[in-house]
Amino acid sequence: MVSVCQAVLTSVLLVSWVKMTNLMPDPSRRDLLMRQEVSRRTGGRVALTAAEQRLDARLHRLKEQEMSAAQFPPALHFFKAKPLIQRSSIFKLLQKMPKGAALHIHSSSLVGVDWLVENVTYRPHCYVCFTWDNSVRFVFSSRHPFPRWDCFYWQLLETLRAKLKDSAGFDNSLKQHLTLVTEDPDGAYPSQDAVWEKFEKAFIAAAGLITHAPVLRDYYYKGLEELHHDNVMYLELRSGLSRTYELDGTIHDKAWTLKTFQEVTKKFTADHPDFLGARVIVSVHRALSVSEVKAAVKEAIQLQKEFPDVVAGFDLVGREDSGRTLWYFREALSLPAELGATLPYFFHAGETDTEGTDVDQNILDALLFNTTRIGHGYALAHHPLAKELSRESSVAVELCPISNQVLKLVSDLRNHPAAVLMSEGHPMVISSDDPSLFGTTGLSYDFYQAFVGIGGLKSNLGTLKELAVNSISYSSLPAHLKNRAQVMWQNKWDTFIADNA
Amino acid sequence: MVSVCQAVLTSVLLVSWVKMTNLMPDPSRRDLLMRQEVSRRTGGRVALTAAEQRLDARLHRLKEQEMSAAQFPPALHFFKAKPLIQRSSIFKLLQKMPKGAALHIHSSSLVGVDWLVENVTYRPHCYVCFTWDNSVRFVFSSRHPFPRWDCFYWQLLETLRAKLKDSAGFDNSLKQHLTLVTEDPDGAYPSQDAVWEKFEKAFIAAAGLITHAPVLRDYYYKGLEELHHDNVMYLELRSGLSRTYELDGTIHDKAWTLKTFQEVTKKFTADHPDFLGARVIVSVHRALSVSEVKAAVKEAIQLQKEFPDVVAGFDLVGREDSGRTLWYFREALSLPAELGATLPYFFHAGETDTEGTDVDQNILDALLFNTTRIGHGYALAHHPLAKELSRESSVAVELCPISNQVLKLVSDLRNHPAAVLMSEGHPMVISSDDPSLFGTTGLSYDFYQAFVGIGGLKSNLGTLKELAVNSISYSSLPAHLKNRAQVMWQNKWDTFIADNA
Repeated sequence: MVSVCQAVLTSVLLVSWVKMTNLMPDPSRRDLLMRQEVSRRTGGRVALTAAEQRLDARLHRLKEQEMSAAQFPPALHFFKAKPLIQRSSIFKLLQKMPKGAALHIHSSSLVGVDWLVENVTYRPHCYVCFTWDNSVRFVFSSRHPFPRWDCFYWQLLETLRAKLKDSAGFDNSLKQHLTLVTEDPDGAYPSQDAVWEKFEKAFIAAAGLITHAPVLRDYYYKGLEELHHDNVMYLELRSGLSRTYELDGTIHDKAWTLKTFQEVTKKFTADHPDFLGARVIVSVHRALSVSEVKAAVKEAIQLQKEFPDVVAGFDLVGREDSGRTLWYFREALSLPAELGATLPYFFHAGETDTEGTDVDQNILDALLFNTTRIGHGYALAHHPLAKELSRESSVAVELCPISNQVLKLVSDLRNHPAAVLMSEGHPMVISSDDPSLFGTTGLSYDFYQAFVGIGGLKSNLGTLKELAVNSISYSSLPAHLKNRAQVMWQNKWDTFIADNA
Repeated sequence: MVSVCQAVLTSVLLVSWVKMTNLMPDPSRRDLLMRQEVSRRTGGRVALTAAEQRLDARLHRLKEQEMSAAQFPPALHFFKAKPLIQRSSIFKLLQKMPKGAALHIHSSSLVGVDWLVENVTYRPHCYVCFTWDNSVRFVFSSRHPFPRWDCFYWQLLETLRAKLKDSAGFDNSLKQHLTLVTEDPDGAYPSQDAVWEKFEKAFIAAAGLITHAPVLRDYYYKGLEELHHDNVMYLELRSGLSRTYELDGTIHDKAWTLKTFQEVTKKFTADHPDFLGARVIVSVHRALSVSEVKAAVKEAIQLQKEFPDVVAGFDLVGREDSGRTLWYFREALSLPAELGATLPYFFHAGETDTEGTDVDQNILDALLFNTTRIGHGYALAHHPLAKELSRESSVAVELCPISNQVLKLVSDLRNHPAAVLMSEGHPMVISSDDPSLFGTTGLSYDFYQAFVGIGGLKSNLGTLKELAVNSISYSSLPAHLKNRAQVMWQNKWDTFIADNA
């Protein structure tokens, strides 16, 4: 039951191997093997300067301390680990580190809910409605909104707040509707179904605020600001380009939203010349029908022609386990080739722990449809052939550790299958998926989990460097912008090392 | 270190690979890739007969049902999953299936505690003592035992029981001292430290009963009976060969214990001709000093000379994370070669989730010291080079899923890193580690977790067949006994298929 290839290989290697008996292994050979193994890891071949080595040694000591403390943050649910992480010296260094690009963030969950509640819901004409299923809806309207199927009674927030004694308590309750954050995550979310239900409710709740056209501008600017503040310099945003509305009832189309993204990005990079920019991965929900996805693919091709600088490509979003598979949409996904167009794909795939089901085949199908990156790829480590194919084609995995934990794929992050991928130096970038829903901003929290929890003690400054560089090289940027980004990043990195070594 | 074979394969695949764009992937090519991936899995190349295919289809349907049920046993703590597993049709089939050999069981935890309490503690002259730290000690003695450092007040169980009203409740409390089983595992064992503390207390509690010489005979016979009842045909038992005592105060040496194992095995196989036998892996605790381990290694060499049919080799036991590493014992472990002797090693290694520490190097050192198998190898998936070396040298991993979960390395067994090893067809056998402590008997519970939880939907009857065959081929049996074992197993397998297809 062993292949010929394996048999040949085995006999070749065994020549040196069978010499070993119970003899004391040669310590230099042992060192060599250990170094060989380390060199395969993410960052294992990055040469560090003397200054980088000093910072690396410091990081190593800090990591040893954190691993031997009574509570190890990556082993806890993030909602419980967050205050510990905030006190961590490693985390504080990661915040200062130039992390490159955020390549997997959804537009509806880009900005922290504090700002949404404390800024946006305080704007004039903002109405709220509490639904029978313990959810909330918002809408901006110049007059009292009509009852909708899901909302019978709208209240003007300004009026409501004037009546309330405990407005801080009220605002907190609004925030709870907009995030998954809770003190008792195990009690609140006993299953993946439960956490996904809350997840989708929070998206719907936020939509009413974000799709108000004037808010979208500010929201998006604020999102870039939060990333910039966390030393991230470029964003690829997955967005459904929901239609936005004005107070006067005007409804804008997707092109308007893309144009807004384009304008705000331009303004932001003018205000912050050390920020490179942003692009959009147009996304539709995997609950749609084949014909609807066909229409979306056609539209994405068109939008990419109109906004070649903004539109990076296309993706399907929503929970994989309960959604339709990539193979189900094969006719829609092969439309670009049929039409003689190109449309880069950035598919979510393998965000599942149900091994061997149809859903589990999304990984292979994403590769067969020539995906540029794989969103999550949680199941990839269990697919050795797909793993090789993605490595050969330089298809990076977008690792979002906190998302995978909060959405209950894994509890202790040391058991995240990306530990296997990292040990093999698989192409990988770190992202945050839905920062506002998980109570994070920027990429530092997810970098912390990947570096301290998933990477273990062997992940070093080289790992961080490679992950940051990866985020540029696996981005959708054209070559000249990649070069510019790498130069910008290297300057920031050099400053970071000089300041902290 | 990419093999020539892989490189060739890669370039072949890439030729066809780069042609892919957004074109609809050729369904036959997709099928081929899926089949290639399946063929790498444990059991993926096992050809099934028509009858086996019928049973396989039935297993597949059953597994789909269990995966879609409200509660998926491998995702729950075993103590909560056990009643669900007992009702599972897959489990009932696994109980009937000839599973081959149990290669990783510790002698102190071989027999279910029901028998220990209901049979052994009811024997005459059995004394009990309750310690200040909520533990229990037993001793058989013809007169009242002296107080010991850990036990001040011994009571004759016969007298104590005569005074008690609720003897069933009392017996249950004794059972609780002898196992980890509890209704609230998360509350009772908040950390790995907590569960290991209880684990070691339970071992000490059992020792007083098991090391009574007359009990050891019955205990060991009973242990073989439980394995035989679960359709296991051969055992490799890790045992420290603790000194046993007689009622008259006689203390036996290790040779006596080995002789007892030998005699009881002989009687058992005479009583049960379809049981092949058992061997012992002599074990010492990794808390010992180098000189103590040196003495133990020398003694093991001597015992192997005296009992070549019984002694399979040597191992170090105890919690790796808090114990000394293999490399710490390198002088002791290279003694056999220095003395011109051979002593096969069966090292525990990588039973840890602390990646990158010295403990984590046990995996590589086990291989460098030419280990025959790797006990647990939980961390192996994170060591790509060690993984290749072990595969090339046919060093099988002894996978003990329930042990890893109860001892808190992983909560949801779908995240067990052995899922990676199984997807790559890594040499592997299934065992139960400490069945009595976890409330299991035989191998069926662990086979269930490996087959349904870790293997996912793609594990099939071929997987089960390969795992059973592995347990014989990776055993320490000499070639002629392996052949005999394979023939015996095949006959049992054929009957199993004929009865259940």
